[in-house]
Amino acid sequence: MTAASNDLLLRNDAGGICTLTLNRPAQRNALSIALMEAIIAELDRIKTDGGVRVAIITGAGPSFCSGHDLKELRADPSRAHVEKTFALCSTMMQRIIALPQPVIAAVHGIATAAGCQLVATCDLAVAAEEAHFATPGVNIGLFCSTPMVALSRAVPRKQAMEMLLTGDPIDARTALRLGLVNRLAPTAQVMEEALALAAEIIAKSPFTLKIGKEAFYRQAELGLAAAYDYASQVMTENMMALDAQEGIDAFLAKRKPEWKGC
Amino acid sequence: MTAASNDLLLRNDAGGICTLTLNRPAQRNALSIALMEAIIAELDRIKTDGGVRVAIITGAGPSFCSGHDLKELRADPSRAHVEKTFALCSTMMQRIIALPQPVIAAVHGIATAAGCQLVATCDLAVAAEEAHFATPGVNIGLFCSTPMVALSRAVPRKQAMEMLLTGDPIDARTALRLGLVNRLAPTAQVMEEALALAAEIIAKSPFTLKIGKEAFYRQAELGLAAAYDYASQVMTENMMALDAQEGIDAFLAKRKPEWKGC
Amino acid sequence: MTAASNDLLLRNDAGGICTLTLNRPAQRNALSIALMEAIIAELDRIKTDGGVRVAIITGAGPSFCSGHDLKELRADPSRAHVEKTFALCSTMMQRIIALPQPVIAAVHGIATAAGCQLVATCDLAVAAEEAHFATPGVNIGLFCSTPMVALSRAVPRKQAMEMLLTGDPIDARTALRLGLVNRLAPTAQVMEEALALAAEIIAKSPFTLKIGKEAFYRQAELGLAAAYDYASQVMTENMMALDAQEGIDAFLAKRKPEWKGC
Repeated sequence: MTAASNDLLLRNDAGGICTLTLNRPAQRNALSIALMEAIIAELDRIKTDGGVRVAIITGAGPSFCSGHDLKELRADPSRAHVEKTFALCSTMMQRIIALPQPVIAAVHGIATAAGCQLVATCDLAVAAEEAHFATPGVNIGLFCSTPMVALSRAVPRKQAMEMLLTGDPIDARTALRLGLVNRLAPTAQVMEEALALAAEIIAKSPFTLKIGKEAFYRQAELGLAAAYDYASQVMTENMMALDAQEGIDAFLAKRKPEWKGC
Repeated sequence: MTAASNDLLLRNDAGGICTLTLNRPAQRNALSIALMEAIIAELDRIKTDGGVRVAIITGAGPSFCSGHDLKELRADPSRAHVEKTFALCSTMMQRIIALPQPVIAAVHGIATAAGCQLVATCDLAVAAEEAHFATPGVNIGLFCSTPMVALSRAVPRKQAMEMLLTGDPIDARTALRLGLVNRLAPTAQVMEEALALAAEIIAKSPFTLKIGKEAFYRQAELGLAAAYDYASQVMTENMMALDAQEGIDAFLAKRKPEWKGC
Repeated sequence: MTAASNDLLLRNDAGGICTLTLNRPAQRNALSIALMEAIIAELDRIKTDGGVRVAIITGAGPSFCSGHDLKELRADPSRAHVEKTFALCSTMMQRIIALPQPVIAAVHGIATAAGCQLVATCDLAVAAEEAHFATPGVNIGLFCSTPMVALSRAVPRKQAMEMLLTGDPIDARTALRLGLVNRLAPTAQVMEEALALAAEIIAKSPFTLKIGKEAFYRQAELGLAAAYDYASQVMTENMMALDAQEGIDAFLAKRKPEWKGC
């Protein structure tokens, strides 16, 4: 393991897969301002790092992430501090969406509040069979309003509302059924399963993945006609590039493609 | 039971939970103009009633609600009457969304057409295991166009389309799977289960619930960046309020919070 | 079976149900430009054909549809040719949405890339229990960007993303669970099941179906208040028409309605 910006966040690179480990285990990886800044800084480095093809986000210790650092949040009650905290968190989530590489959450223990939001935000998620997910802010008088932006775009409306209004946790099986995660694995195999999913993805052209991920989130906000106009343009640009021509020629010739990355 | 505006709608208040019972059992609680006006009037009273923390909507007799009152609808075929009926219904549904308190549907028997819409519109829903849900307007030449506004925001697109094009009922288990309801219970325990869900929610700060419910529906209509800008602002305002500070302090001190309601 | 525009697409009309069969079995019904033009031309004829009440789209041979014709796509690498291909495909999909009659996909074998998009686009879908669905463009360097417009509106976000990023197929049971299809049947009974679904729908007023289908897709793109304003107007127009009045009167008199088609 290589230390990243600082030891709050560990970074490990191997075979095109960059694993970021939230490393505040005693605080169940609570998202302090310093940790969020470290994540943003690291995502910005990954963004232009041609060696990274897929990123995995996971947590050290017994849990994935428990959300904001409440002690830090209460230590400075000024509006400036509060605003900074939530703005930083929203920036971090949107940097994951904006990252050209796919991002996989590898989740064990609990993923609560902004931790649950982080799972909902990653492109894909693998969870331990005994993991739990919750948006419990309502229990402490602080509704999970920013987490619900991600949650309500990942799971059906009434089920998101129940999590938000009751604060009750859902188990991994329910999270899978609702669409919050993609795959389950025994706790000891969560990282293995996330790596297997990453390995599948790094066999693809990174150029194509970048085009596709960006287009996915953009078209999702458009009406149908505008989405088709936009996606047709994206598809044309994609087809004019070398990787699509190589990919199709390799497929028709039944050989393995050699990606040029453009 | 206390009569509300009139005996078409019964209102019962107990321990912060206000139960509204549609009371036209012989008409399977069909939504006549008078009943819809009574519901709107009662929701307007609840809105500013600090004693009400959660509302439950249920139906007297064998069914939850069979939709519009077709006899009344046909009795006056003028455009003015028809327009009034549908406008009133749409207003009623949007008042539920706009109510600061969470609203739970407690459903038994059938919930059809605007009755199914009412279930889809409530923030949460508990249903009897033998309940059925349908948008059967297509069978009588009157497509469930206003019900589909709520239905298509609660369940996946193709499944909403099947209900709308065929008019076929779905059973409670299917409704749960599709996301139309949150929990199932034996018929005799539906109200008990709804009350248990309400009891969970009234333990929260009503101020926080109000902020969160409003933000949920507003952010759902925004693009991602706008939703995050808005939700970050909401979260900051929420954090600057006494209930969040009390809630967090109580949580950190492992004591029960005392909500101030602001 | 009657040949349609040409033998790439077969058309069979019986009892108000028009079945279009993609007929390039040796190419697993790949959507060549000629085939897409034939489908568009046929949909334009169906649109104004009062004898057609429901359309079914199916495929000849071992599969439903394998997406674009890659050989044709590579045969002319000019931007004009590429643009034409994707624009034509997007037009075809939107003509299905714009068709006044409901469209059912009857799927067996594989439905991949634009073939999977075709399933996601049809109003309803019946699939063989052993059918498979995939958006594997990423494997050949050409991300399924136009297919994702339809796919991401039919299934939950993370599951759409997994299909798009990995290219992995999902089986029919998973497609049913995610909402991509409505019903499963053994391969030999897929057409029978699609016909049964169509038979249910042709019992309705075609005028009402047309109003409802159009309103469904339009309201889906509006915010809640605008959707209710629009849907209330649609419902009023629908109610002022003869078929609704006949349908309600027949229902109240417990007799079968006789649709006038207006």
